[in-house]
Amino acid sequence: MKIGIIGSGAIGTYYGAKLAHAGNDVHFLMRGDLDDVRREGIFVRGEGENFRVEKVSCHSSTKEIGPCDLVVIAVKSTSNLEIVDRVPPLLHERTMLLTLQNGLGNEEFFAEHFGADHILGGLCFIAITRKSHTEVDRTAHGDIVLGEFNRPAQPRTRELAAIFERAHIRCHLRDDLALERWRKLIWNIPFNGLSIVAGGVDTRFILANEHLREGTLDLMKEVIAAANKCGHALSKDAWRKHIEWTEAMGPYKPSTLTDWESGKPLEIEAIWGEPVRRATAAGAQMPRTEMLYVLLKQLDRKRRPE
Amino acid sequence: MKIGIIGSGAIGTYYGAKLAHAGNDVHFLMRGDLDDVRREGIFVRGEGENFRVEKVSCHSSTKEIGPCDLVVIAVKSTSNLEIVDRVPPLLHERTMLLTLQNGLGNEEFFAEHFGADHILGGLCFIAITRKSHTEVDRTAHGDIVLGEFNRPAQPRTRELAAIFERAHIRCHLRDDLALERWRKLIWNIPFNGLSIVAGGVDTRFILANEHLREGTLDLMKEVIAAANKCGHALSKDAWRKHIEWTEAMGPYKPSTLTDWESGKPLEIEAIWGEPVRRATAAGAQMPRTEMLYVLLKQLDRKRRPE
Repeated sequence: MKIGIIGSGAIGTYYGAKLAHAGNDVHFLMRGDLDDVRREGIFVRGEGENFRVEKVSCHSSTKEIGPCDLVVIAVKSTSNLEIVDRVPPLLHERTMLLTLQNGLGNEEFFAEHFGADHILGGLCFIAITRKSHTEVDRTAHGDIVLGEFNRPAQPRTRELAAIFERAHIRCHLRDDLALERWRKLIWNIPFNGLSIVAGGVDTRFILANEHLREGTLDLMKEVIAAANKCGHALSKDAWRKHIEWTEAMGPYKPSTLTDWESGKPLEIEAIWGEPVRRATAAGAQMPRTEMLYVLLKQLDRKRRPE
Repeated sequence: MKIGIIGSGAIGTYYGAKLAHAGNDVHFLMRGDLDDVRREGIFVRGEGENFRVEKVSCHSSTKEIGPCDLVVIAVKSTSNLEIVDRVPPLLHERTMLLTLQNGLGNEEFFAEHFGADHILGGLCFIAITRKSHTEVDRTAHGDIVLGEFNRPAQPRTRELAAIFERAHIRCHLRDDLALERWRKLIWNIPFNGLSIVAGGVDTRFILANEHLREGTLDLMKEVIAAANKCGHALSKDAWRKHIEWTEAMGPYKPSTLTDWESGKPLEIEAIWGEPVRRATAAGAQMPRTEMLYVLLKQLDRKRRPE
């Protein structure tokens, strides 16, 4: 299977390297990191895995890569408009376009440009850091929850899951991808948001502080209610698992906080803006999420030069 | 009329100086600023007024001052517990205890300690800065909205208003003080809160930014709905006047932001905590205000050493 990886952050580099290490024909689209990776390859470190992909096929142009069977989109959703013109050379009639991005609206965006039939989505449950152009460290998990855009799993989805599994990436097929996107928001909306707006705090701090914990629970319940109003049946106490899981995980800095601290773009629209807009359209209220959205937009705008 | 002023910030200094300048028998409780004020007096500057009170009666102990006919409480509500033991020497049977503090809960606090009959409350509509121990600059307005605690205006309330008016302080008597407290919260809850949480921005910035403006309107409507649920009949569009008035005023830094920037305590409980608690008790929801409350508590805690 010929695979193209768009986006050489931690996610693209890690899953691309895993797929290449398992013998797939993987091609990376890269920019500044191209020479380093060509020279040194990619090092992956994590519990139970320590390997180097020596010869990495990397390119600065999608025309050089040409049509693929699978294209993995692993850029920040804030870059969607930048990459959309570079995708067409990667497509043939049956190319699967898999977005591993956060939040809501990414499948819709690519479906609009390239046709809904091409589109799949994946949610990455992973704690990972890109140490340099050529090194990624995985600190926890690594699973992908995989689904088709707006339809149940197809034969190709199962084939794709099998390819991931052969590359030692645990893969969970789901028939309702949108439901899973909302389920992940139960976590992302409070923790990613509060970690920044409360002044740079991690998950342990948030859960230990009486007021922030209360705020987190309120936000989680608000997300669940909005999801249900939008037709995605999350159970009323779905927040419990997220809290238990986060408590078990120990202190963790949400990726958005790391991005914030290093001056990188935040996926504000995908994580907060789009859920609020969909909830509003469905007649639901997300006042707490809206407050976070307003504040994040403003804080983000303030740190950037006009 | 013998008057004691507790609290020598901008509010206490300004109104105390006005009352003294008009010939009342005014005594200030002071701390570090005592020597400066004894030596230099108090200078008041503002449109249409420029005067100095030369001989200021200031004291470091309320026992020295002794029983007064009127005691003005002008400390931050965060200091209520500190001053409560110092009040008794100032009281006789018919002393009026007037709190000029912000937010909810101050009348109740002093009523509990000294009896409801003593208590009056005032809302100051003023833009004022204390330039030094001995100087205050008034930049706009100066009116006081005055009322009795939990009862309509009494003969003594009218007498007190007359004393203020004779000191050239415009005074508006109200029969329902609690309603006026909630009315002021329509402004304080959004502007004081957002100005800090959005990263240090003034009223003009908030109203010019599409998202912060929207957040402000949502917060105002939330306050109005909660007030009504608590039995205070604010009209549904009461927010309009506040917006018009704020737009006319030009850029203004809410006092809480000034306090925040200079590391002073914030009246978080009086402005955000107590309204949320009362609304909750009345079965109303203030989710946006609650988010601000949570974030302000946390940001405030973070800037202070444990």
